[in-house]
Amino acid sequence: MVETQHEHSGSATLAPNMVWDAWGVAAGHQPLSAQIRGLLGQVFGISGEPVPRRDAADVPLISTTLTTADRTGLTDIVGDEYLTTDPLDRLRHAGGKSTLDLLRRRDLEPQDAPDAIVFPADHAQVMALLAYCAAHEIAVVPFGGGTSVVGGVDPVRGRFDTVIALDLRRLDTIDAVDPVSGTATLGAGLTGPRAEELLGAHGLSLGHFPQSFEFASIGGFAATRSSGQASAGYGRFDDMVEHLVVATPQGTLDLGRAPASAAGPDLRELFVGSEGTLGIITSVTVRVHPVPETTAYQAWSFPDFAAGAAALRTVVQAGAAPTVLRLSDEVETGLNLARSADVGGNPVSGCLAITTFEGSAAHVAARSAEATDLLTAAGGTALGEAPARQWEHGRFAAPYLRDALLDLGVLCETLETATSWSNLATLKAAVTSALTESLAAQGTPALVMCHISHTYPTGASLYFTVVAKQLDDPIAQWRLAKTAASEAMVGTGGTITHHHAVGADHRPWMGAEIGDLGVRVLRAVKRELDPTGVLNPGKLVP
Amino acid sequence: MVETQHEHSGSATLAPNMVWDAWGVAAGHQPLSAQIRGLLGQVFGISGEPVPRRDAADVPLISTTLTTADRTGLTDIVGDEYLTTDPLDRLRHAGGKSTLDLLRRRDLEPQDAPDAIVFPADHAQVMALLAYCAAHEIAVVPFGGGTSVVGGVDPVRGRFDTVIALDLRRLDTIDAVDPVSGTATLGAGLTGPRAEELLGAHGLSLGHFPQSFEFASIGGFAATRSSGQASAGYGRFDDMVEHLVVATPQGTLDLGRAPASAAGPDLRELFVGSEGTLGIITSVTVRVHPVPETTAYQAWSFPDFAAGAAALRTVVQAGAAPTVLRLSDEVETGLNLARSADVGGNPVSGCLAITTFEGSAAHVAARSAEATDLLTAAGGTALGEAPARQWEHGRFAAPYLRDALLDLGVLCETLETATSWSNLATLKAAVTSALTESLAAQGTPALVMCHISHTYPTGASLYFTVVAKQLDDPIAQWRLAKTAASEAMVGTGGTITHHHAVGADHRPWMGAEIGDLGVRVLRAVKRELDPTGVLNPGKLVP
Repeated sequence: MVETQHEHSGSATLAPNMVWDAWGVAAGHQPLSAQIRGLLGQVFGISGEPVPRRDAADVPLISTTLTTADRTGLTDIVGDEYLTTDPLDRLRHAGGKSTLDLLRRRDLEPQDAPDAIVFPADHAQVMALLAYCAAHEIAVVPFGGGTSVVGGVDPVRGRFDTVIALDLRRLDTIDAVDPVSGTATLGAGLTGPRAEELLGAHGLSLGHFPQSFEFASIGGFAATRSSGQASAGYGRFDDMVEHLVVATPQGTLDLGRAPASAAGPDLRELFVGSEGTLGIITSVTVRVHPVPETTAYQAWSFPDFAAGAAALRTVVQAGAAPTVLRLSDEVETGLNLARSADVGGNPVSGCLAITTFEGSAAHVAARSAEATDLLTAAGGTALGEAPARQWEHGRFAAPYLRDALLDLGVLCETLETATSWSNLATLKAAVTSALTESLAAQGTPALVMCHISHTYPTGASLYFTVVAKQLDDPIAQWRLAKTAASEAMVGTGGTITHHHAVGADHRPWMGAEIGDLGVRVLRAVKRELDPTGVLNPGKLVP
Repeated sequence: MVETQHEHSGSATLAPNMVWDAWGVAAGHQPLSAQIRGLLGQVFGISGEPVPRRDAADVPLISTTLTTADRTGLTDIVGDEYLTTDPLDRLRHAGGKSTLDLLRRRDLEPQDAPDAIVFPADHAQVMALLAYCAAHEIAVVPFGGGTSVVGGVDPVRGRFDTVIALDLRRLDTIDAVDPVSGTATLGAGLTGPRAEELLGAHGLSLGHFPQSFEFASIGGFAATRSSGQASAGYGRFDDMVEHLVVATPQGTLDLGRAPASAAGPDLRELFVGSEGTLGIITSVTVRVHPVPETTAYQAWSFPDFAAGAAALRTVVQAGAAPTVLRLSDEVETGLNLARSADVGGNPVSGCLAITTFEGSAAHVAARSAEATDLLTAAGGTALGEAPARQWEHGRFAAPYLRDALLDLGVLCETLETATSWSNLATLKAAVTSALTESLAAQGTPALVMCHISHTYPTGASLYFTVVAKQLDDPIAQWRLAKTAASEAMVGTGGTITHHHAVGADHRPWMGAEIGDLGVRVLRAVKRELDPTGVLNPGKLVP
């Protein structure tokens, strides 16, 4: 059964996180200039006129299956005002923000969505909800900021009739701050900005700035092994996790007793990255640092990607300790130049690299000097601060641009992987070829650009952005290209995802990633903690 | 049945690793000077005359239970020359090197030992052995260097009649070196020195130098979450592991596809620290680095432990990146001074700290300058290079000293924990009190000294050395003291072990460490991979 609601505004007490059919908030969406639309029209053979967005009230939504008895059972736990089946609330929890999600939102077919959304107040209510759902066979999708780009919060019912989204936004407190040890205990529902605001009151910062920063949640960062743009300096989110509290249908896990331990396997690492399939993370104690005294910005030009990558490698292997260290390939550098021409960006040929250093003035000066020597010796030309500051200024804006492109009938999506330094060029070439060849075979020439945004002593990430004209069925079009890219990754020694997680979209490749026996290990843990299988069905575990 | 063998020399083809009844090799054992023996005699009320060691041939050894059929089954896999039931070989595999192990070796009671030792050539033979043992219900104790100090290689039979030691020393090759990425693939049976030698031929170093370095193995480092004395610079062994190959009765696991990944839980972290209970690690790809150009040594004095700990904290939290960073408390500083008086050590009051920095000359100069500023500002007095070089020179010798003390009737053992910086003083006081009070209640005043040898942004390890007179039953005496210390650790927010692992000795506290549900998770994984339970019974998993 499908219902179309003509009057709904969502629940009053719970402000929306993001708009239902695109990234972010309405104010973030700016139309592209006529000049850029004209350019896109030429390149991709499109009209350059955006398709108007739909009104949520016109969306045919599959009716909720929540029974009256279950509504009562759930509201007995959270209270009447913290359960909603309002269509707009359901739409806002209907998935994440992958291009596939956004294309589905634009689709005229009936939309599926969670049958209800519950907003527990605390860990105890999460535990009670899990017990209820396990006993009454209701699937549970944990929902933080809803920024997943891999189908991680899709309302998959699995073998159950009903699926609810368990929205963690009310777990939004900072529960303990230890400035001596540099740790803080954060509620799973805190967004990135709110966590920074609460820490900032103590003179502290987390330093985790993924592109999803403005909307994503602390629990989501942990559950998906998120990695921020300052990972060179402050580590991946995995590295920041000191302690976790995890709610499961079988009880609470309380993991991490010390900064380091030899007391057996590190079980935190089973739940970091578990994507709500093994339990729901309700609280995370993270490593924090004082708000840095100073930040030094520097941009660099390298003749080509190979030279730039080799230069980044020398910096990270020497332990020169930048906070941000990134490199755009020739295509991305050229396109960013085109985009930034209006705002006075420096002309950059070859490949643009960016470094920042944070800490005390003396610390920054020493590190920056060492990196400058290494990058110069490796063939880099210093470009000054401006391009680096400009990158930082616009670093959360790219997803809004994607929506503008989708509106114009242009397909735009990103994907990412990682590998060793020695395998980086091979992997980059393989993924680029897979994407361009798959899209070309479908009759749509593609632009594929790439950057390195996360570096390690032994290797680096590769982040690809793909742009092509949308075909009549852009979902099928992208699925073909994405499959080709994924096969190239696993066939060329890369990981299926460096920081976007597995969700529903990468699940078919988990066997290639960890082997059949590794999959059996995950299933064994899931059986133990979630014997009825209500936790986020259809995600992560094949 | 007990047999005493009067003629045995061990198998000819496999040179012994360590002597059967003490640490290390015979040449490492030097008698204490008459002066020190006299001093110990005064302090502890002992004669100062060492009890002579026993001849292995006089040791009553419980007879092997290996059946002829099983001998044939096992030698069909490894070949006749790679299975031994020779009593001396069995004694050499009868346990690790904890003080309890060494006291048991000195005991007149019949000694238990593995019923046979097998020496597989490669991963395939390990797989075949596990399949055979699972099918024929033979317990398997993986054996690397045999340096466990927590009962990790005790020949526990569990519910089985027969237990074998699976000695990995023949897995001693370096299989891949990638100098660009800074990785190398090492056989699990390589000892620390041999791994460094093979890497050194490529201009590379692992930089993992635990006190067991000279004898312990790569597989053992991974299986026990070992941490070396240069952990501030090169990380714990956990941090170095890029890729693992693990043999289990259910198949092979091949884990770690990239320097970092968001493809679900990090399953490597289930096997790092699994102590042979979930599988046998046969190969480890580790992060390596170029042999450093230069090393800078510096020693420091602080007025007291609190001031020194605060100073170390500022260094690690600032990211000053020392290679070694350690601090002895007042008691340890005083005793080391007494010991080093003969060799011209500087007189040091208060607490001695040591830093080293490694890398290029410029890198070392910058880091060392930053640390010098921070340590000076925190109240430290620079003592020059000599005490730091002296510490490095003697850093693998302490276990030999323990044997000399045991021979004199002095109890000597170490234990370690870790916690946050803000909890460090509380934990140190609690463990010190627990040890001194437990031993005092038994009528034996104790010396308890402590140092910090591993630092993290959020906390540090505490390593205790305990010295007291042996009572008539020193095993019971130490068990009481160790139990008191362990209870103090888990009761004061510390981990039960920072780098010695769990083995048999810490197993009773695993519930306190990871909770009952955490224990259930470990059991679920073990059931999946080792359904018959042959892998290292009685260790780690409660």
